[in-house]
Formats: sequence, structure tokens, C-alpha cells
Amino acid sequence: MSDSLERIGRVRMHGGWIDTYTHASEACDCTMRFGVFLPPQAQEGPVPSLYWLSGLTCTEENFLQKSGAQRWASELGVALVAPDTSPRGLDLPGEHDDWDFGSGAGFYVDATRRPWSQHYRMHDYVVRELPALIEGRLPLLPRRSVSGHSMGGHGAIVAALRNPGHFQSVSAFAPICAPTRCPWGEKAFSNYLGDDRESWKAYDSCELLREAESAPALLVDQGTEDGFLAEQLKPELLEEVCRERGHDLELRLREGYDHSYFFVASFFEEHLRFHAGALAT
Amino acid sequence: MSDSLERIGRVRMHGGWIDTYTHASEACDCTMRFGVFLPPQAQEGPVPSLYWLSGLTCTEENFLQKSGAQRWASELGVALVAPDTSPRGLDLPGEHDDWDFGSGAGFYVDATRRPWSQHYRMHDYVVRELPALIEGRLPLLPRRSVSGHSMGGHGAIVAALRNPGHFQSVSAFAPICAPTRCPWGEKAFSNYLGDDRESWKAYDSCELLREAESAPALLVDQGTEDGFLAEQLKPELLEEVCRERGHDLELRLREGYDHSYFFVASFFEEHLRFHAGALAT
Repeated sequence: MSDSLERIGRVRMHGGWIDTYTHASEACDCTMRFGVFLPPQAQEGPVPSLYWLSGLTCTEENFLQKSGAQRWASELGVALVAPDTSPRGLDLPGEHDDWDFGSGAGFYVDATRRPWSQHYRMHDYVVRELPALIEGRLPLLPRRSVSGHSMGGHGAIVAALRNPGHFQSVSAFAPICAPTRCPWGEKAFSNYLGDDRESWKAYDSCELLREAESAPALLVDQGTEDGFLAEQLKPELLEEVCRERGHDLELRLREGYDHSYFFVASFFEEHLRFHAGALAT
Repeated sequence: MSDSLERIGRVRMHGGWIDTYTHASEACDCTMRFGVFLPPQAQEGPVPSLYWLSGLTCTEENFLQKSGAQRWASELGVALVAPDTSPRGLDLPGEHDDWDFGSGAGFYVDATRRPWSQHYRMHDYVVRELPALIEGRLPLLPRRSVSGHSMGGHGAIVAALRNPGHFQSVSAFAPICAPTRCPWGEKAFSNYLGDDRESWKAYDSCELLREAESAPALLVDQGTEDGFLAEQLKPELLEEVCRERGHDLELRLREGYDHSYFFVASFFEEHLRFHAGALAT
């Protein structure tokens, strides 16, 4: 299976390389695509990685084109791994009808409801299959952190909370903090996971934090002029549960910033320095 | 005329603002659009500007989305002004047929041949009309430098050479160095300027440098893996004329880099520091 790994693009940037790969994914039962930025240090030996989980409608490209992240990855010697946001190349009923569900909107869950359950297993893909595929074959240490934006911010926090010790650190930009309690999440979870709302809690940051005895320190940035803030993102629920349960949360409200990659780019350097510190220890 | 200036977008980034404007252009006889990044220093008082001229197919958006330039503009207190690359909203015969001519491909010349001569006056637009419109109305000093990419690198060097003293400094990324001697330039100039090749020399960097008694110092970056290098860009001609005439050229060949914004982003910081030095003195 892993023999199918094929590099389909290579561009030089900031002294390193942006490589694009395709491979046959077992988790998603389709061909998947991802991008990876290898900093110059990777030419000398394997380096740790930051996995970046993108938001609704994105592919493996958006982050690597718009975040400016490579500048800091190059300085700090951290690889950037950017998976796609859903299975591709399929044609499931309704899969391409909405921008907030189906293709481009995998929500980083392992679907249990048909027809999604055969392919939409993005949690398994980004946490297990992708690292196992590339660490060792590419110059990447088995040492990783995770971050993401919006749907991917939700994905990053959930991936870290469900898999203790798998990531050295976790952060998020404008995450969907409580998908069981917002329209985007309710639409996605009812389709991917079915009508039993109890089962949804396994992919809800706030619910996981409510049950957790301990949790990794969370670094979250959120723009105050984000048009999705009140209805979809709800960082106040994250704040509430962390306060109640004594979990370490640094939530930074950024005056005047919106939901775009202009916001992500503005604060990515700080996040990567946070992760680089954790990856070095 | 200038009363038509209207802000149609505003996004916060790196402590400043990316603003998008439309206005009725006298030079181009149509509605034009441009983007400007105002660094945080512009909230205290007017700042100098770098005019960025983009390449073929681009709009005012590409540079501000993909270059990461705002990070350095914010640190150095320099505004970034990004005009569109051609008149828009017209429907001249053949205007939209090719990606390398007409819309998205104004080549920063003042066309003399019909039907282009009524609208395609991008040299006049970027050198005269746009600065006159925005310096004073926006928090911008009448103090500016110019840079650009590919077709816009050609535009930047030509704008500086044709208008001594108008720009404090000039640089270019992968410029079309001799448009009178490459397919892109020959196609554009024969359409915009007509069959008299003598008239083309007024918009050719190498020809202008050949005639110039003195010239500003030129900073040029060029990727060695740029697919357009040999046929369209020809930096060796720039090198040759600068050596012959004793003009100051720093041409940096960047091993492995291509023609994309990944290349521009990799070296933009160095260019902006060069311009900021000139703008401060």
C-alpha cells in the first residue's frame, strides 16, 4: 500500500522544498493527496513535524500558499505536513452539494454512518495512517505537533485530546470549539455519525475536556471580527470548561481580525515557536 | 474624478490593514481596482510606499495573498501598493483571448495603437495617476519605491528608468529584461505600440540602460529553475548592458527556485529592507 507514495510536485521556498504527494489511502479507501514543507535542516537529517489541519473548502494547498509559515519552519527546523480536508475522487450521494459537508469538509472524524463510513475516516487518516506512511520514508522524525484552522482547529484539538502523547503540543486558530452545539458541527456529525448525539461527544473538544483528568496546554488565537465567531466557533465554551476543569488554556482574542488566512499568517510565527519549543524537549 | 475613490474591502493583517479600493481612472478610462497594505505606523502618520507591479494573469490580489510581504512592511513601516495589471470591465476585440496579452497583461506601457490606446495606459496609471490619487488622501507620504515580478519586474525597472527621481529605489523578481527581444514582449509591444520597433525601445530596460548616462542601483533576483528564464526573461542581457555602461546591478541567481510566488516570498524580505533603507534617507 505504502509503495504507492508518489511525489507529484516540488517547489523550492525559503531554502527548503514544498513537496506534493499522492498515495493510496487505506483509511479513506481512495487516493489521497498531501503537501509537506521540508526545511533546509531536513537535508542533514530527519526533523520533527507540525501537522496542519485546514478548514472547510480547503485542500492541501491553501496553508502552504497563504500562511507564510515556511519562513518560520525554515528558521526553526520544523517540517509542515498539510493533509487534504476530505477523501477525494468519489461521487457519494450529495457529497459535492454543500461547501460545509462532504468533499472539503471531512471534519476529522471517522464516520460510522453509511455511505460515509467507507471513506470519511479523516481522524484515522491524519493521526495514524499519514504519520506511519511518511515518518521514516521522508526525512521526518516520529515526533510531531498539531495545529489547524476553523474545522481544522477543531480537528487539531480533538486529535490531541483523543491520542495522549501522540503530539508534543497542540494549538488552533479560530477553532470550532463545540461542534455538537453549532450548525456546522450538527450538520456534519448527524450525517457522519448518525442521530445518537452521545456518540458525537467523542469528537467535541469541550466534551473531551470535560471528561479529561489532564489535558495538554492549549494555545488558541481568535479574531474578534470573525464572522463565524458567535454562531459557529464559540470559544467561550472552551474557556468555560477549561476554567471548570482546571485545564491550561491560553485564548488570545485578536482585535479586528477576521476568519481568513490573513489572520492565520499574522500569528503563525508565535504558534510555531510554541510548537518548536515542545518538539525540542 | 478622484472623488470616486471607494474602499470596497478591509482586512486586518500583521497589525495593519489590507484595503481594496476602486476608482474611476482617467488614464485607463475605466474603473480600476488596487490593494494597499497600511502598516501599523500609518495610524500615527503618513508612511512611504513600495509600489508592487504584478506579472501576467495577476490582479491586485495575488501579491497581497501569497508573498508574505506584510510581515516585513509592518516591521519596517512601509505601505505596499498593489495595482491591477490591466484595465478591466472592457470588451475590446481579442482582449480576453490570450493569457499573455490584453486583460491581465497590460505590460505597464502607454499603448499608442488602436483600440488599446484609449485604455491600456498602465505606465501613466501606475507612475502618475495612482500616486497622485492616493498620496495625501491615504496616509501615504509622496515618497515611494517600486518593485515587481516578471512582467511587473520589467514594469518596475522601466518606470524607474523613465522617471528619474520619482522612485527612491527599484528592484525586480525574475523580470522580463528585454521585451523587445522575447516572444511575450514582441507580442505585447507589436499590439500596443505598433510595428515600428524603434518605438518599443522606450519600454525596454536594456535599451533604456544603454542610453542612460546614469541609472539607479538595480537589485534583481532570479531563480535558476525558472521555466521562462532562457526564452522570455534573459537576465544575461541586463547584465551585459550594465557591465558595458557601468550601471550598478546586483543580480542574484537563486539555485533551484522557479517563477512562482514561493520564489518571491523567499526573498521579499531582503528586497524590502533594501527599499526601506532608500526610503528612509
